[in-house]
Amino acid sequence: MLGLMQEVPLSIPMLVRRARDLFPDKHVVSRRPDRSIGRAPYGDVIARSGRLALALRALGVAEGDRVATLAWNHQRHLEAYFAVPSMGAVLHTLNLRLHPTDLAYIIGHAEDQVILVDQVLWPLWEKVAPLVRVKHVIIMSDGGETPPGAIDYEALLSGSADDTFQFDDRDERTAAAMCYTSGTTGRPKGVLYSHRAIVLHTFMSLASDSAAIVERDVMLPVVPMFHVNAWGFPYTTAFVGATQVHPGPHLDPASLLELMSTERVTMAAGVPTIWLGILQALDAAPGHWDLSAMRMTLVGGAAPPESMIRGFKQRHGVVVQQGWGMTEMSPIGSVSRLQRKHDDIPEHEQYHQLAKAGYPVPGVEIRARSESGLLPWDGTSMGELEVRGPWVVREYYRPEDPITQFTDDGWFRTGDIVTIAPDGCITITDRSKDVIKSGGEWVSSVALEGALMGHAEVFEAAVVGLPHPRWSERPFAVVVRKPGALVEAPALKAWLAERFASWWVPDDFAFVDALPKTGTGKVQKSQLRDTYRDRFAGADEAGAAHPPAEAGA
Amino acid sequence: MLGLMQEVPLSIPMLVRRARDLFPDKHVVSRRPDRSIGRAPYGDVIARSGRLALALRALGVAEGDRVATLAWNHQRHLEAYFAVPSMGAVLHTLNLRLHPTDLAYIIGHAEDQVILVDQVLWPLWEKVAPLVRVKHVIIMSDGGETPPGAIDYEALLSGSADDTFQFDDRDERTAAAMCYTSGTTGRPKGVLYSHRAIVLHTFMSLASDSAAIVERDVMLPVVPMFHVNAWGFPYTTAFVGATQVHPGPHLDPASLLELMSTERVTMAAGVPTIWLGILQALDAAPGHWDLSAMRMTLVGGAAPPESMIRGFKQRHGVVVQQGWGMTEMSPIGSVSRLQRKHDDIPEHEQYHQLAKAGYPVPGVEIRARSESGLLPWDGTSMGELEVRGPWVVREYYRPEDPITQFTDDGWFRTGDIVTIAPDGCITITDRSKDVIKSGGEWVSSVALEGALMGHAEVFEAAVVGLPHPRWSERPFAVVVRKPGALVEAPALKAWLAERFASWWVPDDFAFVDALPKTGTGKVQKSQLRDTYRDRFAGADEAGAAHPPAEAGA
Repeated sequence: MLGLMQEVPLSIPMLVRRARDLFPDKHVVSRRPDRSIGRAPYGDVIARSGRLALALRALGVAEGDRVATLAWNHQRHLEAYFAVPSMGAVLHTLNLRLHPTDLAYIIGHAEDQVILVDQVLWPLWEKVAPLVRVKHVIIMSDGGETPPGAIDYEALLSGSADDTFQFDDRDERTAAAMCYTSGTTGRPKGVLYSHRAIVLHTFMSLASDSAAIVERDVMLPVVPMFHVNAWGFPYTTAFVGATQVHPGPHLDPASLLELMSTERVTMAAGVPTIWLGILQALDAAPGHWDLSAMRMTLVGGAAPPESMIRGFKQRHGVVVQQGWGMTEMSPIGSVSRLQRKHDDIPEHEQYHQLAKAGYPVPGVEIRARSESGLLPWDGTSMGELEVRGPWVVREYYRPEDPITQFTDDGWFRTGDIVTIAPDGCITITDRSKDVIKSGGEWVSSVALEGALMGHAEVFEAAVVGLPHPRWSERPFAVVVRKPGALVEAPALKAWLAERFASWWVPDDFAFVDALPKTGTGKVQKSQLRDTYRDRFAGADEAGAAHPPAEAGA
Repeated sequence: MLGLMQEVPLSIPMLVRRARDLFPDKHVVSRRPDRSIGRAPYGDVIARSGRLALALRALGVAEGDRVATLAWNHQRHLEAYFAVPSMGAVLHTLNLRLHPTDLAYIIGHAEDQVILVDQVLWPLWEKVAPLVRVKHVIIMSDGGETPPGAIDYEALLSGSADDTFQFDDRDERTAAAMCYTSGTTGRPKGVLYSHRAIVLHTFMSLASDSAAIVERDVMLPVVPMFHVNAWGFPYTTAFVGATQVHPGPHLDPASLLELMSTERVTMAAGVPTIWLGILQALDAAPGHWDLSAMRMTLVGGAAPPESMIRGFKQRHGVVVQQGWGMTEMSPIGSVSRLQRKHDDIPEHEQYHQLAKAGYPVPGVEIRARSESGLLPWDGTSMGELEVRGPWVVREYYRPEDPITQFTDDGWFRTGDIVTIAPDGCITITDRSKDVIKSGGEWVSSVALEGALMGHAEVFEAAVVGLPHPRWSERPFAVVVRKPGALVEAPALKAWLAERFASWWVPDDFAFVDALPKTGTGKVQKSQLRDTYRDRFAGADEAGAAHPPAEAGA
């Protein structure tokens, strides 16, 4: 027997209409490349989005066609977020930090028909353009000449001064957006988000136990709009009528802090690297920026060290909330929040709890598996996390490499190695490709990195497994010291020895000025493994202090 | 082009599994008929629900069959909420305040196969039973004999001591639950909720701008589980792992206040009548109950007077948040919250704002219509509210009377007369059947009642339109004074004359001990109109102070 409720599809126009009808006077704020600030009410932004949709249709963009963007976070990019899915096309956001040949591969694979390019990214586009075939190139300019063959964004909109676009519902199963994984192994893989997935992810993001965005918020997505739809925030924020503040290309700590302070930002979101830099800037100039409006910053994309969470709260009164997710998960999978039962544990244990990946958000289900099958939720058994939910990928878009990420019963294999506590709390111990296996036992690089970054003289740290003649692999730490700090390996070894089994302690350390990062701000561990590959090649076969195979198991 | 995300249906088992997996140790608290308190962890409640599902299946309940309940709010009723939809049957909650012949009509119309009855409601069931045919009657007993022909609930569960029920997903389009409207006009009409509607309504209810339920909450649904699924709270609360506190049959103010105090309730929900009684009890014994844990109470089902919202906040520190909804809307349609722009208005205007029905929640769209077409959002034009959304009814279940509640384009006509402000804020001025039309102009009974209840000596008030020889109808007020109060009509007329156009002021007043109420606690205005029908029959044809047709329009 079928229910008798209205068949209203869950599609992005539903989100846009709410902002248009209820919050036409709330603002979208953008920092332009010249650092000036632009402001526009949602009413105008959405009217312009409607004109963009009609103009793209006039250019020949049909339902299901891919429309790419190569752009920073700003109002026009948001207009594309509203217009492209609402007209039935697919918004394909390109990661501008990728190599031009990777971009060309992705554009070709997705068969993008139209691309919108920031003027400041035109030099990058000029490297990509000869390698691809797109029908129309639209330049989002802030003055200056329109390059030959390109269409000026504002001219396109003026040519379509028509407010007849209605933002009618779309079939919720159809594709709304796509994003390629950064592809540190194999070819980049495309994730094709349905309208339904994005709308449900938006509803979940409103929940008080997840991102909890409300009308009162002034939201700064530092996370780029080319990185999993900026974690959904452009849609979530519009749906509840919160103010959006977009930083444009200015992502240095001082620029971000200035924006947070002057725009009275209440909530921000970004990867730990950004927040480490911001924390350093705050520590260096206490009281210089007014963050009194900030209620929370959401950190994801990699595990934030506990010391950073503590530092923000204790020294600057800013709550850091960790979210864990993936491109394949739209992206939010879990959020770390204290539960009622944590009220009674000591403060340092609360921070320890908050540094975990946390609890699956409503709508996402989890389990972990090792070679011997599904793992108990005991907080110690390590295995690969598998997830299920209406905003989790079912299959990649036309994959070219063999795909092993889906189980027979349709769960997605995340590639993250985790423990799951009895209460469902996830702790990420590693990416599966970064796992360190020493003497048959797993060592968690994430745990070691978190502890290292808790040392007063360490700014950032990465731990990788390097080939070792006796133990197969041994941990090796690469450390960026804080400015002026002089700490050396013995002190850090002692620091770790207080916290972990002795055979977890890295055999050696390197000190560097900066860690190599991927296009989305994650540490490029594959490069570190390459660089230091032979470090233990000549090691004494009995070198490690405690044979892990004896100490562990 | 279709998206490539997992096809996970939105069905009630998703909600149940989350409580089972993440919050097995959080509690469901129930007050029994003998006033003792029962406590059970979600783990046990859900295991018992699984056994109930298997037992019902063994009794022959098939997919789509209706399983009725005649019960107060308590743990076993919650078990039915989890079990019945999860096994593919339809949970039909019966309003125990209806007349036995109405209950018999509803049970027959729904073709209920099985009914679960509270032992304390057995006398009511004995009046209904001869009028209906159900296959199995299950008694939820707290000791005592099982009546002949009935099955004891606990015996049924023991007979099925089998934990193999898996709470697998269901097709989201199928029916999960049904509820009949109270039917003050015509036959009761059945609303058939789909799994999808209930799950989406649950996600919306988690939003920080709507009910904002979180794991930390201790939730007391005073609203009965037979009243639109207790506004969804049994599901919403379980989904986030909040504690549920069920009052059983003890709904008097003192019992509820004691429960709130001893269980450290953070959030409650119910109709204004209940909260008026609670406010009176609090005022009579300040400091007697400890409500320091309370963060909010959600009031809906009728408009709470502004004076009540102010009284709770100013005198007892409790935030009253108004929600507007309908059985046909699962039920939440709008919530009254202050927006950022209201921070700067004076406090008395903030209360005035909060006394409105508020803004449509995410997922619900609104418009209003008069005889001349769709109304502008100008805050003054009055018309019937129409709504659209994935948890709004599309059609009634096998209606027997002609149905006029659906527009040609599929919106639901609510029967509520409203104004919509330019910012989308809804003000309910009347139910369409209660509208007062004096001299061709509408007078808002809701506005007059709110003002009357703001008078220090008035406990409760209802205003109805009575036939009048000159003005077609004139407003008439029926007032319940506070204990010991002596206020008379002239003082109340003067009070209203300060606040409204003079032709809005009721021509006459009656003072009574209590207002007649419907089964869901709403004032029965039809009965008031019957009782006082001839009050203005002999009125001077020029009686009203200011002819409304001249004063208005």
